[in-house]
Amino acid sequence: MIFASDTWSGVSDEVMAAIAREARRGGPAYGSDPLTRAVERRFCEIFERDVAVYLVGSGTAANTLALSTYARPGGMVLCHREAHILVDEAGASELHGNRCLGLDGIAGKVTPETIGAALSKFSPDHVHAGQAVAVSITQLTELGAAYSPAEIAAIAALAHEHGLALHMDGARFAGAVAGLGVSPAEVTWKAGVDVLSFGGTKNGCLAAEAVVFFDPAKGRDLPYARQRLGHGFSKAWFIAAQFDAYLREDLWLNNARLANGAARRMAAAIKMSRIARLALEPDGNEVFVILSKEANERLKGAGVVYGPWSSATFPIGERPRSGELLVRFVTSFQTRASDVDRLTSLLR
Amino acid sequence: MIFASDTWSGVSDEVMAAIAREARRGGPAYGSDPLTRAVERRFCEIFERDVAVYLVGSGTAANTLALSTYARPGGMVLCHREAHILVDEAGASELHGNRCLGLDGIAGKVTPETIGAALSKFSPDHVHAGQAVAVSITQLTELGAAYSPAEIAAIAALAHEHGLALHMDGARFAGAVAGLGVSPAEVTWKAGVDVLSFGGTKNGCLAAEAVVFFDPAKGRDLPYARQRLGHGFSKAWFIAAQFDAYLREDLWLNNARLANGAARRMAAAIKMSRIARLALEPDGNEVFVILSKEANERLKGAGVVYGPWSSATFPIGERPRSGELLVRFVTSFQTRASDVDRLTSLLR
Amino acid sequence: MIFASDTWSGVSDEVMAAIAREARRGGPAYGSDPLTRAVERRFCEIFERDVAVYLVGSGTAANTLALSTYARPGGMVLCHREAHILVDEAGASELHGNRCLGLDGIAGKVTPETIGAALSKFSPDHVHAGQAVAVSITQLTELGAAYSPAEIAAIAALAHEHGLALHMDGARFAGAVAGLGVSPAEVTWKAGVDVLSFGGTKNGCLAAEAVVFFDPAKGRDLPYARQRLGHGFSKAWFIAAQFDAYLREDLWLNNARLANGAARRMAAAIKMSRIARLALEPDGNEVFVILSKEANERLKGAGVVYGPWSSATFPIGERPRSGELLVRFVTSFQTRASDVDRLTSLLR
Amino acid sequence: MIFASDTWSGVSDEVMAAIAREARRGGPAYGSDPLTRAVERRFCEIFERDVAVYLVGSGTAANTLALSTYARPGGMVLCHREAHILVDEAGASELHGNRCLGLDGIAGKVTPETIGAALSKFSPDHVHAGQAVAVSITQLTELGAAYSPAEIAAIAALAHEHGLALHMDGARFAGAVAGLGVSPAEVTWKAGVDVLSFGGTKNGCLAAEAVVFFDPAKGRDLPYARQRLGHGFSKAWFIAAQFDAYLREDLWLNNARLANGAARRMAAAIKMSRIARLALEPDGNEVFVILSKEANERLKGAGVVYGPWSSATFPIGERPRSGELLVRFVTSFQTRASDVDRLTSLLR
Repeated sequence: MIFASDTWSGVSDEVMAAIAREARRGGPAYGSDPLTRAVERRFCEIFERDVAVYLVGSGTAANTLALSTYARPGGMVLCHREAHILVDEAGASELHGNRCLGLDGIAGKVTPETIGAALSKFSPDHVHAGQAVAVSITQLTELGAAYSPAEIAAIAALAHEHGLALHMDGARFAGAVAGLGVSPAEVTWKAGVDVLSFGGTKNGCLAAEAVVFFDPAKGRDLPYARQRLGHGFSKAWFIAAQFDAYLREDLWLNNARLANGAARRMAAAIKMSRIARLALEPDGNEVFVILSKEANERLKGAGVVYGPWSSATFPIGERPRSGELLVRFVTSFQTRASDVDRLTSLLR
Repeated sequence: MIFASDTWSGVSDEVMAAIAREARRGGPAYGSDPLTRAVERRFCEIFERDVAVYLVGSGTAANTLALSTYARPGGMVLCHREAHILVDEAGASELHGNRCLGLDGIAGKVTPETIGAALSKFSPDHVHAGQAVAVSITQLTELGAAYSPAEIAAIAALAHEHGLALHMDGARFAGAVAGLGVSPAEVTWKAGVDVLSFGGTKNGCLAAEAVVFFDPAKGRDLPYARQRLGHGFSKAWFIAAQFDAYLREDLWLNNARLANGAARRMAAAIKMSRIARLALEPDGNEVFVILSKEANERLKGAGVVYGPWSSATFPIGERPRSGELLVRFVTSFQTRASDVDRLTSLLR
Repeated sequence: MIFASDTWSGVSDEVMAAIAREARRGGPAYGSDPLTRAVERRFCEIFERDVAVYLVGSGTAANTLALSTYARPGGMVLCHREAHILVDEAGASELHGNRCLGLDGIAGKVTPETIGAALSKFSPDHVHAGQAVAVSITQLTELGAAYSPAEIAAIAALAHEHGLALHMDGARFAGAVAGLGVSPAEVTWKAGVDVLSFGGTKNGCLAAEAVVFFDPAKGRDLPYARQRLGHGFSKAWFIAAQFDAYLREDLWLNNARLANGAARRMAAAIKMSRIARLALEPDGNEVFVILSKEANERLKGAGVVYGPWSSATFPIGERPRSGELLVRFVTSFQTRASDVDRLTSLLR
Repeated sequence: MIFASDTWSGVSDEVMAAIAREARRGGPAYGSDPLTRAVERRFCEIFERDVAVYLVGSGTAANTLALSTYARPGGMVLCHREAHILVDEAGASELHGNRCLGLDGIAGKVTPETIGAALSKFSPDHVHAGQAVAVSITQLTELGAAYSPAEIAAIAALAHEHGLALHMDGARFAGAVAGLGVSPAEVTWKAGVDVLSFGGTKNGCLAAEAVVFFDPAKGRDLPYARQRLGHGFSKAWFIAAQFDAYLREDLWLNNARLANGAARRMAAAIKMSRIARLALEPDGNEVFVILSKEANERLKGAGVVYGPWSSATFPIGERPRSGELLVRFVTSFQTRASDVDRLTSLLR
């Protein structure tokens, strides 16, 4: 039983079929193919407006390129202190002229309060500190929580008031949309998001992510930056093909619903456990659990694969006590109910 | 009939089958899977020695990461003035701390003479000019020519004497090995190459390139640099799967032989033409041809797809005369003899 | 009365005289002059060993160049969370390939404990986090404290054990040496420091800082990096002239003793105050004081110039209480005892 | 007799007096002092319009910061192939996101023709090549020639038509203004220059250069970029003091007239020589001369200091013949007529 990460999942059959279809014939290189154009139109439909879309092969590429658009000298991107762009991309943001400033926050969320406090450190009269250029939020957060449209709108209002862009790292965007039951537009541009890293890889694709600018003019330099990053693939249709299948007939949302459902099933069962307890109520496909020593040993003994998680940003009251361990279980569209049930039966 | 570029070709069935096989099951992320280990061992076999191998998704990524290893402040990479790293990667090398210095040379080749002349401009007493850190050669060159082992050895000797690394951009490495009839070892480390960008994408893969260090210790920082570039893919097994098939039972060399054979067939026929002439004898799968106006019109009229090429680096005597046009035809493992014959019949 | 910063001080007469002397005649450009050679020898004397010395015009240049030597992809420099390189250089470190990771610590100091905890986050098996490349300590710290040779040696031992370099930002190095009563060698290479930013500007120079490598071979690339940063000045003798005077007949230590003495005099008097209290015992020329509202108003009314300071990194018990304010008074070699006495009389 | 470079000259007495005056008292740090404000106003007077001025310590810093303002991903700055920014700054431009593309041209000048030809290589449909972002011209050129206002206007028109900025590297700007007999406005913004690196160091200052934006809004990010480069000096008044004296009572133009006059005197005499001949008619303070072997030996024997120069960009007819040597003599405001006469008498 693998609950290590949704990056360990396989690929949806529809997605592989689409790649295979294109791979037989090849075609115009570097994204000049008709399928890429069709996928761009599909993104406009999904977001109910004109958007500029740039396909890349990894979430790190999507995030760093999205944010490079807003880079200025000494530029700072305000994000949660556990944000992927800050702690898990080996400095990709810095490669493109930005630094990340990590803020505290419950469940991986930043708020107008923490952002406002950080902004008070920046001033044109004190260039030593640099200048804030963007706020980046992760949807779902690194702790599996979903920002509501209202939460996003409050952050966006503050960001825009200070001339900052609002970026959303949507590596698990599908899970958020499915979990919140809102439209893609409602949790993005209608709430004030300027640019989105739209993830496919964690939810049924092979290697497919998209940078989506809600003001298409902002994407002007992206093709150059993408080429420079080595993400201007010659056979770029292999990414378009993935999105073609992923966005067709709601495969992306259906996959996310499967993953979320498995997580909810797991969380509900864990609430009944005497040797494990939920650390956070899951909004998507990540379940953070505090295991007793006994529980951990049982799971390891049964060959369950999962990982420890840092509790440093959890509220004091929700951290593991002595002998306990905070861990993360991640579900995916491939997770079987029977595997969830086996896991939770071990925790009874 | 498409002779635009080998980047327009499709993917070998064996390669797609390997991706599909892995995609059904997924597995450990970020290259920690057993297939990646197996591919690394396969590279050691092919090169008849221990090598350090890092898989990436594009040639630009491979080149810039390979060269980043040798970057120093003010560092200069000496290469041909038509080298891909200089003119076709939108400044990727510069992103990693190097600049490229373009040298003249017939058929896309640099020589000990041109390198030596360039090196005379650098000195620790004149830091303004920067410092040479590496020589980069392209195999096949951008003009489709193959460096012989002896040519490479002469360049390597000079480079090493001056403390420079020798990088080989092997986007069409298979074509060179197949064309020269030498072993992979003979045209690389045995001749003095330090690091190779080993290409798969132009010759039957989907998106698969490898950085190969012949001194494994030199690869120490590559995983960090790769992650930072967004080429540390979560489902990295999709690249390993491609190489697994590509390097199995000589698929890579067989594909190259098909492409080279088609180019030779084309070149032989063009030598008979009255309205077109060979600009260069092809060593691999690229045929540079000078077309008369009439020839160009006939081909365009017949829907043949190909592109113009700059003649600036050709010897004066081999440049197009007034009314003529220099063009490039590229073959691939998928090129059919019948298509070649149709093309050349149009040029009779 | 100006206690805003030692950067507001003027220049020692001896230093100005040396610049003027050289300025009359000019001479070989870009540091190829005999005075630069003489200053390099003087540094060797002062540090009792062969060192490689590179003159630059600002502390930010010195720090970022010193650290650029140890940059690797995804490289992290561990420093205090108030370190100048992290919060006051507008991202200069990032420009050269490093990121800074801020650690907690009393009085601006990092310790083997905080460094060790941070290092546990890095591993070649988790390249996402990057890799630690150096520890940087500030001497005097940003809170005016001096690291003892024993404290430095403990940090160096841990750093070296993990393959990290130890950098010392010595913007106020003279103050530390004078205050500790040790030799320059004892607080640097004898304790394990690998590279020092040796400051002159805050203590009697105009614009003179030096990067000092205790292993001269490490400086190999510095001249290139310096030129690229625009700190390879054509009339570089203007920096050499400053150091020539500054390091002659212990001007540098005498200036520091004057500044430190003024700070001690101030601190002693403040201990007697009913409306102000010392936040930290000063080791050098910076006095951190918690002012009552009344005290603050009196000083402002009297035209004293000084600045507020963040108390975020102070131990809870030493932070200002409601209505109080944490401020910093900085003395310099030009501070007059009468000004100190006027200040403290206002605080009685 | 030193004719090596104007960077070998000393400093005008007025300039040193101004530094010494400020150095006695010190004052507000980082450019927040009243003298910096006064210098900014003086620049507005000199250029007869509102300008944004940023003081730095070296020409490399001025150039790279000026151009960083226009950097975009894959950005290319078109300049002469001997331009200082391309060949003498160790890659400083690349550090800030630009690459330099060197163009041919007589006497160090680019023209609308060479720029137009280069621009034809760039297109949004071919992002591999990057994108042109600016044209940079050097005034005086690296070969001592002055662009006339009409020449600049023609270049500016083409640049602006393509959305490129026009930068002028004015390391020897005073010499050009003095030589052309035009106003500073006429050779800059009135002709279409967007940003100027205004040099002082080669003409009587110690280390003083200014970035001047003719559209003040373009300077918004300069202070951040300058701090990051380590050119936000704490005692920044030392640069303001230099400009205060340099721009007062036309010292800058008078110094330039002295240097230019010495060059003209030298050139006139060399025209009479049998063993040396002018390679180019000087517009400013640089005299390029082709020496016979005999002439070179005489000068060396007499201890004259000067340097060889590359003839690669000279028209074929003006290159040294076998046995001859192309050299550069540079005069300055300190050059004495008697030294010029001694030199030319050696060449009779």
